[in-house]
Amino acid sequence: MAAGFTFDWKREARTGVSEAVLCTGKTPAQIDAILAEAAAARRRLLLTRLDRALFESLDPAACAALDYDPLSRTAILGDAPPERLKAAVGIVCAGTSDLPVAEEARRTLAFHGVETPDAIADVGVAGLWRLMERLPELRACRVVIAVAGLEGALFSVLAGLIEGLVIAVPRSVGYGVAAGGHAALNAALASCAPGVVVVNIDNGFGAACAALKIVRGMDGR
Amino acid sequence: MAAGFTFDWKREARTGVSEAVLCTGKTPAQIDAILAEAAAARRRLLLTRLDRALFESLDPAACAALDYDPLSRTAILGDAPPERLKAAVGIVCAGTSDLPVAEEARRTLAFHGVETPDAIADVGVAGLWRLMERLPELRACRVVIAVAGLEGALFSVLAGLIEGLVIAVPRSVGYGVAAGGHAALNAALASCAPGVVVVNIDNGFGAACAALKIVRGMDGR
Amino acid sequence: MAAGFTFDWKREARTGVSEAVLCTGKTPAQIDAILAEAAAARRRLLLTRLDRALFESLDPAACAALDYDPLSRTAILGDAPPERLKAAVGIVCAGTSDLPVAEEARRTLAFHGVETPDAIADVGVAGLWRLMERLPELRACRVVIAVAGLEGALFSVLAGLIEGLVIAVPRSVGYGVAAGGHAALNAALASCAPGVVVVNIDNGFGAACAALKIVRGMDGR
Amino acid sequence: MAAGFTFDWKREARTGVSEAVLCTGKTPAQIDAILAEAAAARRRLLLTRLDRALFESLDPAACAALDYDPLSRTAILGDAPPERLKAAVGIVCAGTSDLPVAEEARRTLAFHGVETPDAIADVGVAGLWRLMERLPELRACRVVIAVAGLEGALFSVLAGLIEGLVIAVPRSVGYGVAAGGHAALNAALASCAPGVVVVNIDNGFGAACAALKIVRGMDGR
Amino acid sequence: MAAGFTFDWKREARTGVSEAVLCTGKTPAQIDAILAEAAAARRRLLLTRLDRALFESLDPAACAALDYDPLSRTAILGDAPPERLKAAVGIVCAGTSDLPVAEEARRTLAFHGVETPDAIADVGVAGLWRLMERLPELRACRVVIAVAGLEGALFSVLAGLIEGLVIAVPRSVGYGVAAGGHAALNAALASCAPGVVVVNIDNGFGAACAALKIVRGMDGR
Amino acid sequence: MAAGFTFDWKREARTGVSEAVLCTGKTPAQIDAILAEAAAARRRLLLTRLDRALFESLDPAACAALDYDPLSRTAILGDAPPERLKAAVGIVCAGTSDLPVAEEARRTLAFHGVETPDAIADVGVAGLWRLMERLPELRACRVVIAVAGLEGALFSVLAGLIEGLVIAVPRSVGYGVAAGGHAALNAALASCAPGVVVVNIDNGFGAACAALKIVRGMDGR
Amino acid sequence: MAAGFTFDWKREARTGVSEAVLCTGKTPAQIDAILAEAAAARRRLLLTRLDRALFESLDPAACAALDYDPLSRTAILGDAPPERLKAAVGIVCAGTSDLPVAEEARRTLAFHGVETPDAIADVGVAGLWRLMERLPELRACRVVIAVAGLEGALFSVLAGLIEGLVIAVPRSVGYGVAAGGHAALNAALASCAPGVVVVNIDNGFGAACAALKIVRGMDGR
Amino acid sequence: MAAGFTFDWKREARTGVSEAVLCTGKTPAQIDAILAEAAAARRRLLLTRLDRALFESLDPAACAALDYDPLSRTAILGDAPPERLKAAVGIVCAGTSDLPVAEEARRTLAFHGVETPDAIADVGVAGLWRLMERLPELRACRVVIAVAGLEGALFSVLAGLIEGLVIAVPRSVGYGVAAGGHAALNAALASCAPGVVVVNIDNGFGAACAALKIVRGMDGR
Repeated sequence: MAAGFTFDWKREARTGVSEAVLCTGKTPAQIDAILAEAAAARRRLLLTRLDRALFESLDPAACAALDYDPLSRTAILGDAPPERLKAAVGIVCAGTSDLPVAEEARRTLAFHGVETPDAIADVGVAGLWRLMERLPELRACRVVIAVAGLEGALFSVLAGLIEGLVIAVPRSVGYGVAAGGHAALNAALASCAPGVVVVNIDNGFGAACAALKIVRGMDGR
Repeated sequence: MAAGFTFDWKREARTGVSEAVLCTGKTPAQIDAILAEAAAARRRLLLTRLDRALFESLDPAACAALDYDPLSRTAILGDAPPERLKAAVGIVCAGTSDLPVAEEARRTLAFHGVETPDAIADVGVAGLWRLMERLPELRACRVVIAVAGLEGALFSVLAGLIEGLVIAVPRSVGYGVAAGGHAALNAALASCAPGVVVVNIDNGFGAACAALKIVRGMDGR
Repeated sequence: MAAGFTFDWKREARTGVSEAVLCTGKTPAQIDAILAEAAAARRRLLLTRLDRALFESLDPAACAALDYDPLSRTAILGDAPPERLKAAVGIVCAGTSDLPVAEEARRTLAFHGVETPDAIADVGVAGLWRLMERLPELRACRVVIAVAGLEGALFSVLAGLIEGLVIAVPRSVGYGVAAGGHAALNAALASCAPGVVVVNIDNGFGAACAALKIVRGMDGR
Repeated sequence: MAAGFTFDWKREARTGVSEAVLCTGKTPAQIDAILAEAAAARRRLLLTRLDRALFESLDPAACAALDYDPLSRTAILGDAPPERLKAAVGIVCAGTSDLPVAEEARRTLAFHGVETPDAIADVGVAGLWRLMERLPELRACRVVIAVAGLEGALFSVLAGLIEGLVIAVPRSVGYGVAAGGHAALNAALASCAPGVVVVNIDNGFGAACAALKIVRGMDGR
Repeated sequence: MAAGFTFDWKREARTGVSEAVLCTGKTPAQIDAILAEAAAARRRLLLTRLDRALFESLDPAACAALDYDPLSRTAILGDAPPERLKAAVGIVCAGTSDLPVAEEARRTLAFHGVETPDAIADVGVAGLWRLMERLPELRACRVVIAVAGLEGALFSVLAGLIEGLVIAVPRSVGYGVAAGGHAALNAALASCAPGVVVVNIDNGFGAACAALKIVRGMDGR
Repeated sequence: MAAGFTFDWKREARTGVSEAVLCTGKTPAQIDAILAEAAAARRRLLLTRLDRALFESLDPAACAALDYDPLSRTAILGDAPPERLKAAVGIVCAGTSDLPVAEEARRTLAFHGVETPDAIADVGVAGLWRLMERLPELRACRVVIAVAGLEGALFSVLAGLIEGLVIAVPRSVGYGVAAGGHAALNAALASCAPGVVVVNIDNGFGAACAALKIVRGMDGR
Repeated sequence: MAAGFTFDWKREARTGVSEAVLCTGKTPAQIDAILAEAAAARRRLLLTRLDRALFESLDPAACAALDYDPLSRTAILGDAPPERLKAAVGIVCAGTSDLPVAEEARRTLAFHGVETPDAIADVGVAGLWRLMERLPELRACRVVIAVAGLEGALFSVLAGLIEGLVIAVPRSVGYGVAAGGHAALNAALASCAPGVVVVNIDNGFGAACAALKIVRGMDGR
Repeated sequence: MAAGFTFDWKREARTGVSEAVLCTGKTPAQIDAILAEAAAARRRLLLTRLDRALFESLDPAACAALDYDPLSRTAILGDAPPERLKAAVGIVCAGTSDLPVAEEARRTLAFHGVETPDAIADVGVAGLWRLMERLPELRACRVVIAVAGLEGALFSVLAGLIEGLVIAVPRSVGYGVAAGGHAALNAALASCAPGVVVVNIDNGFGAACAALKIVRGMDGR
């Protein structure tokens, strides 16, 4: 049977973001093989959606080489990024349970050398003053990654208050009509505040990649 | 063939709201017959979803007896309500195109003798200051009927700011994921602000009936 | 990483209902931290959707301070409410399996100082006489919280018989087209009985908050 | 090009119901050809969903031979049925706008020689007394075809009160979550009253065919 | 807290089928209490959807009194039915995995005193000869309960070949677009063969109740 | 503004089927320009979904050069295909109203030089003998394009009876759960008969392209 | 009745994009009033989704002052923008019928003073060479707005080839599973190429607003 | 109770593919009985969707006779196929996690005597060069089975580049809008590249059966 994967090492040069390994649906043996090939090639590598149980079923030697974070389910293979950029990227969450996705975004940015402050957490619109108190920080951002589930009202309210681009990440946590994150997704897409852009439900990684493309590399043009 | 309708004249005594005629799906002949029976019985009657084309296809004599409003597509047969109540019910719209539903609610309340101020229109959250300017009025209301389409963020923001009950009426106007009003409906149901209650998409009539039940009649208990 | 939560202690003054902690999606460590902060601030606190397994994974000291109810998955931190109100709020269930949600509503009302009788259980419309026998009690209520799954016919039948406001809580228990509670939700929204209002599937907490807003505080207006 | 149809004249002998022509999606020329072939073969024929505009675009000679009813959009070619059966089949509607479907069922039964009383109309559960008044008639029926849109609560309430089989026909008229009839369909399928059976939305023809199979022909077994 | 249930012992007299206990969503304690009350009242009782794990968590004394069948997940409390009727009711399955639902139907009929032959299994249309071989038996039935998942073609093919009424029970087993049984449900509702009636997905109990109403009790009319 | 189109004249050499023009969503001016460019380049061209109204709004000179068929809504520009192939491709329809899609497939095959017999129409499974009578013809086909709406049972029945590949084309005509063709689409995808392949709803063109790829060109391999 | 609108003239200063008027759902009288107020205030204004029929029903004097484009259904009131920016924003379409949305985006950018080249049209992936020929232009863009319907494969292919941010605009034109644009929307959200961001179906205006936020104003940070 | 299965041993002669056993929803006892009957009849048999846990719960003697592959969850009973055909069938996967389905297809082909090379894995369009490198192999195939989840762009890109027929197998692995495989399914059905045909989500078995029908048996016609 085929090995099952082919690294796209040229992706960063071509698109500005390097390939990452989405662990969902992969067997431990497949991930071990991917890690071994990356290590052999002396490549840095980001793994996403690596649940703790899956992480613990990997080859212990491979695990030891990983910087693993269970909250965001991300692991990083390799050294610190070659260069660091302090960019005006903010991350906000509507609720405490949105932190895993916010942290996936923060770690993806860090892997690519972009440093951001900690996420501003629990600023959902039911207590609007919490968001208002943080507006000065958020108004200074060129891009804000906003993570929210339930009805996703945070996306519109935030986008009506700041000049930076809002990248909405709908969150799957919720029940009833909020289950799965589709209510928040549709709210983000249907936002009455112009210019909100959206990524897939729970896709903190994708939001970070978009932010990277905005703050890095092509500024001279 | 059967006549096709049976008035529930006892409904108001039993439930606090009188029966209304939903005109969708009825033929002009059926509506003419209903009006004739109500007139013969000297009953007041509210008709909803009476499109202008349908209205104009009714028996002209019947039309002449109706107080018809094309924006809200409502018609009222009969005199002014026997008594009037000034109640602390507010009506707000996120956008201009929500006015027909707001007006359906206002006319339903008026039919039942409850007077309300004009709807506060176009206070969508993309320009939050517009809502904030009207907060003093809204904070004085015991019930606020809020009409919003698109992402329906207004429901949550409003409910986080006032003490009165918010009755959310999702609005069907919109396109893409907002078409039909399901995005706004789900936003209302999934609201992070506790205590928002919801009625069917575009159902200004139903929202008004709920408001009536709250402000009228049982206060002594 | 950020602490992840920001209490909205001012919510009760602003909206009439105090903030509650939805435990779904939160880690034990996060809930422990929230409880510790509330205890330190000598605040009363309501926790919802606290599954027994999650409850048992909390800090034992924190657990000891909680009044935990496994059926409704609610926990209450702190003393009895400062004042009590006997209000005409009824709670009815179509079936036995709706009791957890009814109990969540009852405990939420009790936390806020509103006492209600036990839920009237198992009055689904397949045996209509069971509902009819309880009508005198229900007709005396200003608000009735009705919990029903399957086809949700109870909402319409009840609303056609009483003067009080019916707050419909669709229930997720069921199979086939009833699975997840969307059939009951749509039945509530599409009700032929005017004035039914609806909250999210299984949202006994939200129904209680709406009832609170109706029976408390603004009666003088 | 092919003629496009092949009569299944043996269907009645095989299944107890004769083939009918669903006119939706057929051109006037196709329907004219079908009518001509049936006339040539001296066959009786039932046409369903024949909108007035389509009816009026048919060959005038063919039209003259049809017994056309615009409300139910049915047409009958040929003489009265060879034999008549008075069967205990009842037809009820929740609202006035359900009559076209009720009438489609009544005419389908009549075409097959089963006579039924007029539909009992407008007995929706919002005014339960209207249904209760007609219970004696309904309790005498072996089969009741019930037509209802919106939340379809009538199906469950009726089935909890009578011994005969309830055949539920959901109705597409409505708006918001009731649009298209899926809320009523799911209510019928999820009914808490055991033994309700369901046909497609607006399918009065199919409900009548099922009733036919129950009341006719195999009673000796 | 309320006891949580109210027997509707009069249901059989009123509707021809007795009340059954749907175990989904009930706690062991609730089921134990229900069984105790039925035993005290010397009532026969049918329990459905009683998973083996739930069955084994009941009070052992209660279990001992039950006739439990794990395949159909049904349990029967009490003696054999007072009278027996051999009725022309057939049961067919498209595949082996449809047997649990077929057996739920057969046991429900047996509980009510109607004896049927074993289900005709594995006669899906991919091998049409298997169905054709059993046609003589099926053509002798007044009612045929057909259980099928996947695309549900069996419903239409069968209904085009026999005179008896086909009650379609869609089956939830399947993957991709067949998962959950909605493809089979919609196929049953959209059947091109007139007179197919449908019950909820996996609802063998409901199909049996409908069959009961057809074959029993009202034949004299 | 850009011209708006770029012919992919190399498509036939690359993929075996030539580019066609889907007229939906194009303005008359855009289609006129496309036709003019094709004529100037002396290219043959197939246009699909060209409604009669759109056809009649085209430049009359362009229309005169087209072989237009209103039933299938196709138009062909240019001479007969350079070579002709009699291939064992069959086309069957469940009902008369499926002919437009069948004819779109037949005309697409003809445009590419593949001749097929007329579609076998109206062989839906409600009258199974109609299909059985045509089996000898169908068993001789290497590929059969089957067009069916409603419950789409024809796909499975046919695929269980013949050796050739069945390409299922679900049909959008229908009402209730059959409206739009999703019931038939899901039936085709969930077929219990192995090896059925499916194209988009109403996509007779696509089915013909797949048939072309099977019967032409690569046979030597 | 209330006037129905409240300009948010401060929006551009606050968020970087000025308020626009979505004409869907507004009456001619409402649009006339909005135009009059803008003219009186000497404000520039962008109107979107102004169908030709609606445009022609406006006050002729108001129309004369508008720069109206029927393809994109946009109208501009007022002079050229105060300053112009040549920004590296590209616009591509998969097909000819995507041009209206592409043009809405181009006109929105132009209204805000950002000049872009004409859209690169008809570069769908079925003829991949068409896209490849335009890669040098696209690789020079900091942001590319991509408009595609059907399966939306263009979004992923493009994002895998260029460094700039891809803003995906799904397109509603299509049939069967492509109808309404949800297939393309989900393809954009589920893209395997990291960093694609998405706006609502057909929302060329929103894509342009997002592009504006990226290329303008905050570059110094 | 009935045995529950009826082998269709004539299926291969009739349709070109032999019956296989879908293990989902079957009990170990049922599968043991099926294996015993096949062994007794000295029949070869393919089992699909046989999870490892289910495999391990079978009768050990039966297991020993099976060639079981846990990745594809397939088991083969019996000897090598009687004859072997090297056919130009290719299999490609967009990602590593698509291999189980690709392998199910490869094993199904092998069971029927058709040998294919290993799947070409991980050629998703985000790194288009990976697919381009394998084009020569793929262009030599008469049929290509393509397995892809997420947005399924591979189906369209591939079909635009090769002459062979593309059989698309959507894959259920993914999250958010990609969960369950419906986004990839709709992308395959809505493909802009003509002639793509589609099977159910994850249905590698069905894709292989279709490929078999194309490459085998009827070539002489």
